[in-house]
Formats: sequence, C-alpha cells, structure tokens
Amino acid sequence: MNSNRTEIATLGEFGLIRRLTEGFKIKNDSTLKGVGDDAAVLDYKDKRVLVTTDLLLEGIHFDLVYVPMKHLGYKSAVVNFSDIYAMNGRPRQLTVSLGLSARFSVEDLEDFYAGLQSACDAYGVDLIGGDTSASVTGLTVSITCLGEGERGKIVRRNGAKDTDLICVSGDLGAAYMGLQLLEREKSVFKGEKDFAPDFAGKEYLLERQLKPEARKDIIEMLDTAGILPTSMIDISDGLSSELLHISRESRTGCRIYEDRIPVDYQTAALAEQFNMSLTTAALNGGEDYELLFTVPLACHDAVAALTGISIIGHVTKPELGNYLTGRDGGEVELRAQGWNSLK
Amino acid sequence: MNSNRTEIATLGEFGLIRRLTEGFKIKNDSTLKGVGDDAAVLDYKDKRVLVTTDLLLEGIHFDLVYVPMKHLGYKSAVVNFSDIYAMNGRPRQLTVSLGLSARFSVEDLEDFYAGLQSACDAYGVDLIGGDTSASVTGLTVSITCLGEGERGKIVRRNGAKDTDLICVSGDLGAAYMGLQLLEREKSVFKGEKDFAPDFAGKEYLLERQLKPEARKDIIEMLDTAGILPTSMIDISDGLSSELLHISRESRTGCRIYEDRIPVDYQTAALAEQFNMSLTTAALNGGEDYELLFTVPLACHDAVAALTGISIIGHVTKPELGNYLTGRDGGEVELRAQGWNSLK
Repeated sequence: MNSNRTEIATLGEFGLIRRLTEGFKIKNDSTLKGVGDDAAVLDYKDKRVLVTTDLLLEGIHFDLVYVPMKHLGYKSAVVNFSDIYAMNGRPRQLTVSLGLSARFSVEDLEDFYAGLQSACDAYGVDLIGGDTSASVTGLTVSITCLGEGERGKIVRRNGAKDTDLICVSGDLGAAYMGLQLLEREKSVFKGEKDFAPDFAGKEYLLERQLKPEARKDIIEMLDTAGILPTSMIDISDGLSSELLHISRESRTGCRIYEDRIPVDYQTAALAEQFNMSLTTAALNGGEDYELLFTVPLACHDAVAALTGISIIGHVTKPELGNYLTGRDGGEVELRAQGWNSLK
Repeated sequence: MNSNRTEIATLGEFGLIRRLTEGFKIKNDSTLKGVGDDAAVLDYKDKRVLVTTDLLLEGIHFDLVYVPMKHLGYKSAVVNFSDIYAMNGRPRQLTVSLGLSARFSVEDLEDFYAGLQSACDAYGVDLIGGDTSASVTGLTVSITCLGEGERGKIVRRNGAKDTDLICVSGDLGAAYMGLQLLEREKSVFKGEKDFAPDFAGKEYLLERQLKPEARKDIIEMLDTAGILPTSMIDISDGLSSELLHISRESRTGCRIYEDRIPVDYQTAALAEQFNMSLTTAALNGGEDYELLFTVPLACHDAVAALTGISIIGHVTKPELGNYLTGRDGGEVELRAQGWNSLK
C-alpha cells in the first residue's frame, strides 16, 4: 500500500468520489451522463445492451500481500470486459463500488483508480458510477460492466453443434502457475521485512496472474476474418468447467486432445519445478481470461490460418459425453474442478 | 436466520444460483436473456438506459440482529429502484451479487431471494444476473439496477431554476426514527434470549426502516398530471444533503420552511419520547426514499392539487445560500449532516 497517507474521512464520500473520478474522460457516444446523478444515462440506439457483474473480495479473490492496488484496479475492470467480449460484444461502461476498512488511505484508492483508468483507456470504456462505503473488514470490489452487441452477432453459450471445432485463444494455465509462484514465495518469505523474491524468467506467469488482458484483439480478428463463433465463453474457472457450460447449454458433448492444449514454456517449466500436473493446471487452473469458442467445421481453414488460436477438439453428440484424449491415447472424463469459492 | 440449515457448499456456486433464481420470471420485453451466460442481453430500442448501483455491507448498512433476510432482499432492491424513479425512469433489470461467510445457509439465501423476488414482482423488474462468492466475514450485497428513460423526459439534478417550487413526496424522518427504535430495543434486550420487544403503535416507523418502498406511484401521478419536474433526487442521505446536491448541480440556492416539512404522527411522537429533535430527524435522518423535486412556479396549482406531495419551499439565486426558516422565524443554514459511512 502507498506510503503517503491521507485518511479517507478527511474527504468524505462525495469529495472522495470527485477526487478519484475527475481524471476519467468520457470516450463513448453512448454515454450521455456518467458519474454524478442518481443514475447514469446511456443511449444504445439500435444496439443490444450486454450486462455483466463481478464481486471481488479480499482474502477470497485477492491477497494484498502480493497484489498491488493498481494491478487490482486493472484486473477488476479487465475480468468484466472479458465477459462482454465473450458475448462477441464491446465493453462501453463500468460502475465500480468499493467497501473499504479504515486501513486504506486515499492514496491506496488513487492507486486502485489509476489501474482502473489504465484499463478503461486501453479498452475504450467509460466509468459511469459506483458507490463507496466503509466496511468492517477488508476490501470489497463490485464491478458491473455494460457493453454493446450487434443484433444477430451476439454469441452465447448455447449454439454449439455436433462436429463444430473447439478453439481457444492464447495459452492456458499460466495465471494459475503465477498464483502458485506468488503463494509459494509468500510462505517462504513470511515474516521477513524486505520481501524481494527472485522472479527472473517467470515474468510472464506473474503478468498473467496480476495483470491479465481481455481478448479484444481476438474478437476483432474473428470479425475481420468474417468468422462468427456458434458459441463462446471466457475461461475464468478453467477450461474443463467452461467446456461443460457450453456442452450443457448447447446440449452437446465434446472431445478435446491433451496435445492440442496450448501451454506456454514458462508454465510447463514451473509445473515441472513444482512437480505439478501441467494438464491439470491448463484444464482447471482458471483466471486465464482466454476465449473458448466453437466454429462450424467449414471454418477450419479460416481459423487455422489465424495466429493465436488453437483448435483443441470438436463438439460431439451429447451421449458421447465430455472427454479429454490424453497424449498416451487414454480417455479422461472432464469434470468441473475449476475454482469455486463456495466449496 | 432460518432454522433449517442446508450448507451452501452442498450445492456449489452454479447449483446455488440455479436454485435461487429459478422462480424468477422475465416480465419485460427489453430483457432478451437474463441469468445464465457471460452477460445478460437487453434491447432498449429507442429508450435511454439508466444505470445505478449500491453496495450494502453487514455491520455498516444493516444489522442482521433485527433485519430479517427477506426484508433485506426487498430493501436492497427497492433502494436501487428508487434511484431510477428519481431520474423519472422505470426500473427494468437488476443484478445481485452476494458475498457470504460460512454462517449463512441455503435457507437464509432463499429468504433473501424471496424478498428480492417480492420487490421485483411489485415493481415489474427482471433479475438478469449476479455473482455469488464466499466471504471471510459477514454478508456483502451489491446491486446494479437498469431502467428505462424516455428521451426528453429524464430528470436530473441540475435543472432547478430560481423561483421553482421545492416539493417532497410522503413524509420524512420515519425510517430514521424506526432505526433509533430498533437500536434502542437491541441495546435494552442485549443478552436476553427471547427478544420480544413491544412495537405497538410504532409499526409505521419499523416498516419505513425495514421495508421501504420506492415512489413509483408519485412518478406515475406526475406523469398523468402532465408535470415534468425541473430537477429530482431521491432522499437517501437526508433532505438537507439532497437539497444541497440539487443546489450545487443546478447552481442555485434554496429556502425551505420548517412548518412545511411533512412528518408523520408516529415520527413526532417517538422523537418526543426519545427527546430528539424532530426537525433534525426529518432534515438529516436519511433512508426515507421519498422524492425531492422542483417544478416551475406555474405548476403550483397543479402540484398543490395532488395528494401525497408537499411544497416545502422554493429555489433561489445561488448567492442567497441554502436556508431553513424555522417555526419561530429564525434562519438556519442547511448542512449535509446526512449519513456518511466514511466518516
């Protein structure tokens, strides 16, 4: 947390909100009125409105021992943008509510909002409102994101068809291995004052955990290539869990291949170092914020020609279930072992 | 809290959401897809989209010692609807995120959702999404409400003009006195097992605190009467605080009269019993969820003819400041002493 310290109480709720939000400029025509009235006013004209929301709680979703406030602000926004892209939409507006215990200073919040602003600038999103309140313990972050979808081009989870190809963007498991790394270092250095672990060669894993990106580029690339997925979801709880969502909603099954699952070198190296299963990290790790989508078989060549997308399997009839074919040819039924904070 | 007890972990996050939301029916044409995908899909056609959000934290905004979960669900929804009506809009959709510690059971959540559903049914609003998560301590409720506004009929805080009449709906201070009553009884009965205080004759105060309503009826009545306010806000932090918002945003001043402030008999009686200032309760109590609005002087007779609306003063030039004229003819400058959780 920031070393200068201004108590939040010296500004009051409205003074605080003004100070934190004054640097945000409105970027979208659809935002008629942002922060500062009972409600924000938007005009979506002939576009569909997409709405998603996320609640992030200290001690459950993030650990401020190793997550800087600025990164937390950035990530809180981006994980919501990811949900809008997963509908083939474009994020446009964001509301942010914070519950804050007394240990947080105005400077801590400025760091959080700097990260938020950086994400909003990078993705062209307007901050339009929120709520700031004291809390008894810890930090609570609640974000709602609104986005724009074109009629006929919104992609849901329920459109996958037998024989469709299953595709993922980027690589999987890195954010999870980044988290393992941070947790491991935290426990090693517990109690030491000058916490300066050596993360050389593992920067990618840390970045994937601390500063994930939403795949705006993939959505734009598919649009340019004229490819409209039949179903899509973002990978927040792990590949297995998301595949099962698509199968259930689409009333299909799926078959994926272990050797097709994209994994970065750093992910593989750390899994080996920590003696963890690489495939488990990729299947169940979560927080990848990559896009999982299906396209008709006829799109094979068009999709295969795109960089940054891997074809990992295909959609099947529902009675065939949901299976992974291993490198050894063995079959494993997919289970949702993704992250579930309620268990 | 409910006496039957099913652990939340037995259902898992997705099972829990399905169980809690299956009873909700979609009521609005603008809701194309509600709960169950990465984002909800709405179609507002030529209407403006209004967005408001609130964060409610246990121990700060509510005390589960005397607030039943069902009432909490109802109130959490209604306070957001109130913000949409305060823009002269109509609430249409709601997202609800909950952070829950282990002391809450599935039955507690069913009570909360029963209250939520009751509010959604009463106001014609669709539940379209949310997020449910474990928390380290207590209950966190984050609600975002979307509503519909007609082009040219959205009323903001910044349109009040010199000589406009200042009006409020209903009566003020009752929710605050209800809270005083509950807090007083809580401290009196602390430690006693069979907590059965006598609230006879004070039911209105308790209802205003525990089960407030949003003034849909007032918005519809004004519309029917052809009256479009020049500015409007809902009274959540107290009359003084809200008047100052309108004055600042409209660059005006205001003058209100103590003897015009509407107060219920029960509010007055309890203020006397507790030896508290009635006017302070009405000015600064908060949580009234009544509407405060301004109309042109020419609307005087039309507004005066409506039931449930009091004309309490008028808008002035900004250099005249913001004042209350007391019953004794004395003048008091209005200050925002409303509820501020950050102080």
